[in-house]
Amino acid sequence: MEIDIATIGGYEEVGRQMTAVRAGDDIVVFDMGLNLSKVLIHDNVETERMHSLDLIDMGAIPDDRVMSDLDGEVQAIVPTHGHLDHIGAISKLAHRYDAPIVATPFTIELVKQQIESEEKFGVGNDLVKMDPGESMEIGNGLDLEFVNVTHSIIDAINPVLHTPEGSIIYGLDKRLDHTPVIGDPIDMDRFREIGREGEGVLCYIEDCTNAGRKGRTPSEQLAREEVRDVLYSMEDYKGGIVATTFSSQISRVKSIVEFAKEIGRQPVLLGRSMEKYSGTAERLDFVDFPDDLGMFGHRQSVDRTFKRIMNEGKENFLPIVTGHQGEPRAMLTRMGRGETPYQLDEGDKVIFSARVIPEPTNEGQRYQSEQLLRMQGARIFDDVHVSGHMSQEGHYTMLDTIQPQHIVPAHNDLEHLARYIDLAEGQGYRMGRDLHATRNGNVISLVE
Amino acid sequence: MEIDIATIGGYEEVGRQMTAVRAGDDIVVFDMGLNLSKVLIHDNVETERMHSLDLIDMGAIPDDRVMSDLDGEVQAIVPTHGHLDHIGAISKLAHRYDAPIVATPFTIELVKQQIESEEKFGVGNDLVKMDPGESMEIGNGLDLEFVNVTHSIIDAINPVLHTPEGSIIYGLDKRLDHTPVIGDPIDMDRFREIGREGEGVLCYIEDCTNAGRKGRTPSEQLAREEVRDVLYSMEDYKGGIVATTFSSQISRVKSIVEFAKEIGRQPVLLGRSMEKYSGTAERLDFVDFPDDLGMFGHRQSVDRTFKRIMNEGKENFLPIVTGHQGEPRAMLTRMGRGETPYQLDEGDKVIFSARVIPEPTNEGQRYQSEQLLRMQGARIFDDVHVSGHMSQEGHYTMLDTIQPQHIVPAHNDLEHLARYIDLAEGQGYRMGRDLHATRNGNVISLVE
Amino acid sequence: MEIDIATIGGYEEVGRQMTAVRAGDDIVVFDMGLNLSKVLIHDNVETERMHSLDLIDMGAIPDDRVMSDLDGEVQAIVPTHGHLDHIGAISKLAHRYDAPIVATPFTIELVKQQIESEEKFGVGNDLVKMDPGESMEIGNGLDLEFVNVTHSIIDAINPVLHTPEGSIIYGLDKRLDHTPVIGDPIDMDRFREIGREGEGVLCYIEDCTNAGRKGRTPSEQLAREEVRDVLYSMEDYKGGIVATTFSSQISRVKSIVEFAKEIGRQPVLLGRSMEKYSGTAERLDFVDFPDDLGMFGHRQSVDRTFKRIMNEGKENFLPIVTGHQGEPRAMLTRMGRGETPYQLDEGDKVIFSARVIPEPTNEGQRYQSEQLLRMQGARIFDDVHVSGHMSQEGHYTMLDTIQPQHIVPAHNDLEHLARYIDLAEGQGYRMGRDLHATRNGNVISLVE
Amino acid sequence: MEIDIATIGGYEEVGRQMTAVRAGDDIVVFDMGLNLSKVLIHDNVETERMHSLDLIDMGAIPDDRVMSDLDGEVQAIVPTHGHLDHIGAISKLAHRYDAPIVATPFTIELVKQQIESEEKFGVGNDLVKMDPGESMEIGNGLDLEFVNVTHSIIDAINPVLHTPEGSIIYGLDKRLDHTPVIGDPIDMDRFREIGREGEGVLCYIEDCTNAGRKGRTPSEQLAREEVRDVLYSMEDYKGGIVATTFSSQISRVKSIVEFAKEIGRQPVLLGRSMEKYSGTAERLDFVDFPDDLGMFGHRQSVDRTFKRIMNEGKENFLPIVTGHQGEPRAMLTRMGRGETPYQLDEGDKVIFSARVIPEPTNEGQRYQSEQLLRMQGARIFDDVHVSGHMSQEGHYTMLDTIQPQHIVPAHNDLEHLARYIDLAEGQGYRMGRDLHATRNGNVISLVE
Repeated sequence: MEIDIATIGGYEEVGRQMTAVRAGDDIVVFDMGLNLSKVLIHDNVETERMHSLDLIDMGAIPDDRVMSDLDGEVQAIVPTHGHLDHIGAISKLAHRYDAPIVATPFTIELVKQQIESEEKFGVGNDLVKMDPGESMEIGNGLDLEFVNVTHSIIDAINPVLHTPEGSIIYGLDKRLDHTPVIGDPIDMDRFREIGREGEGVLCYIEDCTNAGRKGRTPSEQLAREEVRDVLYSMEDYKGGIVATTFSSQISRVKSIVEFAKEIGRQPVLLGRSMEKYSGTAERLDFVDFPDDLGMFGHRQSVDRTFKRIMNEGKENFLPIVTGHQGEPRAMLTRMGRGETPYQLDEGDKVIFSARVIPEPTNEGQRYQSEQLLRMQGARIFDDVHVSGHMSQEGHYTMLDTIQPQHIVPAHNDLEHLARYIDLAEGQGYRMGRDLHATRNGNVISLVE
Repeated sequence: MEIDIATIGGYEEVGRQMTAVRAGDDIVVFDMGLNLSKVLIHDNVETERMHSLDLIDMGAIPDDRVMSDLDGEVQAIVPTHGHLDHIGAISKLAHRYDAPIVATPFTIELVKQQIESEEKFGVGNDLVKMDPGESMEIGNGLDLEFVNVTHSIIDAINPVLHTPEGSIIYGLDKRLDHTPVIGDPIDMDRFREIGREGEGVLCYIEDCTNAGRKGRTPSEQLAREEVRDVLYSMEDYKGGIVATTFSSQISRVKSIVEFAKEIGRQPVLLGRSMEKYSGTAERLDFVDFPDDLGMFGHRQSVDRTFKRIMNEGKENFLPIVTGHQGEPRAMLTRMGRGETPYQLDEGDKVIFSARVIPEPTNEGQRYQSEQLLRMQGARIFDDVHVSGHMSQEGHYTMLDTIQPQHIVPAHNDLEHLARYIDLAEGQGYRMGRDLHATRNGNVISLVE
Repeated sequence: MEIDIATIGGYEEVGRQMTAVRAGDDIVVFDMGLNLSKVLIHDNVETERMHSLDLIDMGAIPDDRVMSDLDGEVQAIVPTHGHLDHIGAISKLAHRYDAPIVATPFTIELVKQQIESEEKFGVGNDLVKMDPGESMEIGNGLDLEFVNVTHSIIDAINPVLHTPEGSIIYGLDKRLDHTPVIGDPIDMDRFREIGREGEGVLCYIEDCTNAGRKGRTPSEQLAREEVRDVLYSMEDYKGGIVATTFSSQISRVKSIVEFAKEIGRQPVLLGRSMEKYSGTAERLDFVDFPDDLGMFGHRQSVDRTFKRIMNEGKENFLPIVTGHQGEPRAMLTRMGRGETPYQLDEGDKVIFSARVIPEPTNEGQRYQSEQLLRMQGARIFDDVHVSGHMSQEGHYTMLDTIQPQHIVPAHNDLEHLARYIDLAEGQGYRMGRDLHATRNGNVISLVE
Repeated sequence: MEIDIATIGGYEEVGRQMTAVRAGDDIVVFDMGLNLSKVLIHDNVETERMHSLDLIDMGAIPDDRVMSDLDGEVQAIVPTHGHLDHIGAISKLAHRYDAPIVATPFTIELVKQQIESEEKFGVGNDLVKMDPGESMEIGNGLDLEFVNVTHSIIDAINPVLHTPEGSIIYGLDKRLDHTPVIGDPIDMDRFREIGREGEGVLCYIEDCTNAGRKGRTPSEQLAREEVRDVLYSMEDYKGGIVATTFSSQISRVKSIVEFAKEIGRQPVLLGRSMEKYSGTAERLDFVDFPDDLGMFGHRQSVDRTFKRIMNEGKENFLPIVTGHQGEPRAMLTRMGRGETPYQLDEGDKVIFSARVIPEPTNEGQRYQSEQLLRMQGARIFDDVHVSGHMSQEGHYTMLDTIQPQHIVPAHNDLEHLARYIDLAEGQGYRMGRDLHATRNGNVISLVE
């Protein structure tokens, strides 16, 4: 059976991930993501109303025109998890393919919300839920399996396409977490089996984000301990405490919520993304928040909540808000500008349970946000955080575990892929032979 | 009663700490430290045989000639803890003063060992042990109290000199750790009392090392969780694992020892400093290591141990060795050079439970050490670590707690002290009034 | 005669410089500057309409309330050169003092323009011009002299107040340039004389901006050679070339203008500040631009010019525009956004004859501007530049030359002043004795 | 005619450059370099006595075993210039090939000296001189041409192999310098002709060192102006001035020598490499040094010279010495350690006309060297320098000029090559099609 890998997007950047695998006459598409930074650099761009071709020209969504080079039928579109750089282009591209979108329940729910907010295109693809650990037949003699992985969002999986020539593991976005705060540990046993059963692993497509980082990315449990350490140190403080984190990182939100309770404060989630992700997670029973946990996204209800907090005493609350990157319109930045009813006072604490994504625009905005907060008297606690992507040791472990015949490094520009290539060559692979340095828009033929 | 503070050393550098407080006719000296980097930049300098004046000229030990400007009698020499930058000049300077050395038991033991290795001077001062929480009368109407603090070495205290004019707190080298791995939490209650009793705190001498770091330095408990996360991730590895950390950081050594056991490996301490500090701690009952924990310092016994490890299988052991900064002659660097019987193989793990002290010489040496280890096949886990010095939030907390009338920032150069000065001015202090920017060799008169 | 130095502003930041010297009953004020970054961090602040007290609260202009502690009459307000951080608060503060503003002709002209744009206060102080090298009597037995210096703006001086106790040299903002592109070299001979005549130099107030930089800041001649090298390398290019630099740096503008001509292009200055500074310099005969050099500041005339350039061929022009720091509303940023009639094409060159002021906000904005330009096809030439402030060797030379009895480091925060203090202590001065580490709002009594 | 490119060394590092081109039955080898850092990391390695296979295993010299995959006869070994990373393996590898070494006169002379110092192998290859601008027939229907280029060493060329299928340009190590201080400007006219004549340029092998740097690398003329600016600023200094630079950078040495004379000092070259390179350049008439310029390499004559300088007065001399990277045994480092008769005094000037090669080992050593010099009182002038490698704009210009069909980025690791690949893709090339990302040991077939 012929096997091709089309590396459509996310091979020259982080963002707009998209990869297609053709096995015989059948094609499976993994991820259709958005590169948000290519949108935000322009003023006043509303992606909801834009045509896909314009977004392709801007570099914001994958240029899927290479799909016409693949001789087969798309059988499924498979987003691996709910981050925008993996699902953000579905509303612009999926309707071109007569195929269902297959994903885990949490991811499906986020895809559904995205499709609903789309104003330009009608996206009518079937939405099919499949849980981690499950499989389904696809096309002609193929099986699609979801292996449970651990990432900075819940219900993440690595899809595996089983073909007669061996398995294709689409390995994007995970860390090897044996003690995640929500959900099951990464299913290394299943990866080990896949590596040994049948023809083994024909190809492994790998996320290179942290391939330049030494050692191991710790478990989310460690971030939880950091949150505990910081919040308990504030146990006696009688003023305002505010926290921010990635809205989609439900396990972190959960830790903050729980330790807020433990130190005697009422947590409350504020900001549109906070409401969206945590609300969805709770509705789908991924997390069991306290019954009295408020979540507010609309400006009016947020302001009402802030007023209530000010009336009842800041010392009784712990708002968890958007704005961890200093985004100019996010809640925390607005608090820094004094645009909300919440008054920061000298000595109030602001916890960034996130790292600054290292790019000058972010760094400038985050710096401004911190300056504004400090001008109000706030004290900054930053980097109470652990990455969602594995480091070098995780890569070594994955290679040992699944022993792929071919590797396609992904999820970054060539400069970063290069670090992974060095690592993999140290393990006996060879660039140009079984280790494929590639670019957006290429097709790699593995079996001809 | 007249009160003077002589800022003798460590006000223009990290290293060679020394401060004297005169209250009436009595003087107490806090710390007599060594600036090791000023020694190591020269080839082949042996401090044991050098005269104190030469070491003063090199900037290696405090220039205590300013002591003659103080009109009083030295009643005690009080090192706060056993790090070299606090006790390393005792063997060169203490014999000039007719006064006992008063310290906690672990510190006293390290002072004793240092005096014994001195070849130039005979140091006959009395060595007096006092536990954290205890006090003694000093001179005429003064009391010396040891408040328990938490630092990267055990048995650390902040000495407090109670005078009729208020207390002088010599606050060097601590973090606010409520869950240290060994010993008691920092005694914030006592600090609070001291801040409120009698005349309150006349003066607070403060360690500024991390005054530029946002937020809070976490507890040693967090470093322990990092060690746990890393070691458990290696549970199934069948080759060599080696760890290095600050030899004097007994709590870290203890964590590594314990998790080594838990993952089924025999820990063993190798290197002269490892044997010295951990051996001393165990002998004094500060730590309860497993009975079969080997500690070897001499070249021959180290080599014998390495041979035994190679014979019995690397997979059964976890050597904890010196060399975390890449020091050219330390054990780990020698292992990288292949100068020991221990053979590193492809895939072996090396854990640096330490950060690189940020100075180009260290960075270069550490880089070389890592390169050599990697050439042997090792994989590096770095920065499995938490600092021993408090960050900005700790400083805020201390000021709230003890409310000193005067502050003297210490333990760094003026560029770093400046960051603390900004912080303290934000709390209402004022440089030139009650916040004293000073240099080595000055005398500050607090009460005239 | 009693001599006091009030260090009013610019001792904790770069920006809002202001220093007052009292000699007997007479006071001279040096500089009244604006810290623009404290304004820009807020949205929609228009300083022209704001009250001085609000601007003081924001940290934008000097808090001159300390002036009431000085027992004397203000006889003159003396801005050293025309940069905003030296003259930008005159329109808010000068009217409170019954004293003339004394400055060089170019500086006076800029002060006049600023006063005219002020909407809140009427500023009626006399404007008195004095050339470099000249002196005037001030108050009772004092002389004010202007020593010619070289900086990144023309007509800069160091004012010297001659008193019976010795001279006070207000030494802000210069480099030691013996081959400036416009005007005379720095007058080191006169500094040497002042150091040796009469009572010598009582006090030297020094600009510490680059006290941490090794070696020597080169002459503007070197920047001119850099401009030459870059522009000649483009001699054969048939597309667009655009340059940006500090608008007030007339000598740099002159170099770009001249080499543009040499490679066969018509230079044209675009943007409000470009028109303002270069127009003023030409009107006052400081620079002799080509007769046909266009300067356009208003939006309409700029757009008309851009259209003409596009019609007549980009290859015939070299626009010199505002926007070297990536300021969001400056001309070059607008060109990057495609908001002007000038069309950038693949291969067009953009020369930043400036460095990014190292602060995250600037860095983020500059990065965005470069990204936008690159998206249009532009190629970036950055850092074609030389600083206007002297480095360590300049400081050594000044101390050798004038041999001051006292030094007051200025023009930065304490962290930067600390580097100068280290340098000066290496020359025999001593902090707390004759080397004064100070803060905004202090008064230093030199002669009592 | 079949055309293969074997990318033997220098495609994963800077150092050990080696590339072979097979055209039909004939092979030409370009460069045989040494990666010195792989030697120096070990203690006490003497390359002169080592076998080539051991040096290959260390990664120090190219692994030329891939040569056996090329079906042809080596007709020439062609080093492009005299730097060690281009000629340093000739003494270890050239004797395996029955072919002459063809190079420019200066390069040939350096190769000869290297062969003479070799102790392990007898290297008997013919040494053939060819000047820039000349050509010779090679093998069967091939022509080898030397195009004059400008680099940080004199007599550098880019060899061009003219084949019936088009030209192969081996483009390593140059900047586009139209005003070099010694020799002719880069011959862009000839590159343009080659790009247009016959079949044009089949393949361009390019040096990517600075492909990540914006803009243009300036001419050596600019470095000369920097040297002038610095030395003239010291014209009145009555103490010691010492300069260091890359010994092989004769044009820089010449600038320092000439401006030393102009400010009234006798220059003198000290250190083995200084004597070697400058002596050779003078003997071959590349540079016309003053008759009285001393050059001393042996320890005894250096010490004698230093003694003479101390006797006759440091203010009359300007030693130009080795040690710009802080190499532990170089002359300047020894001066810092006080190991030479030259006494540094407070205020003496040390000029580093070089940049630190950005690698932690160098940075550490250079830092130590500067610290030692400063402890003697020296003042450091660093980075009086311009790179020898072109930046992005040079790469654009070369592509415009020669319009190659294929590009092979070289002279760095993949992470750096990636930056060039981005640049070239912006010009319409495509990785995997006509833009070849490669590794050491690969063979690229261009014409089959």
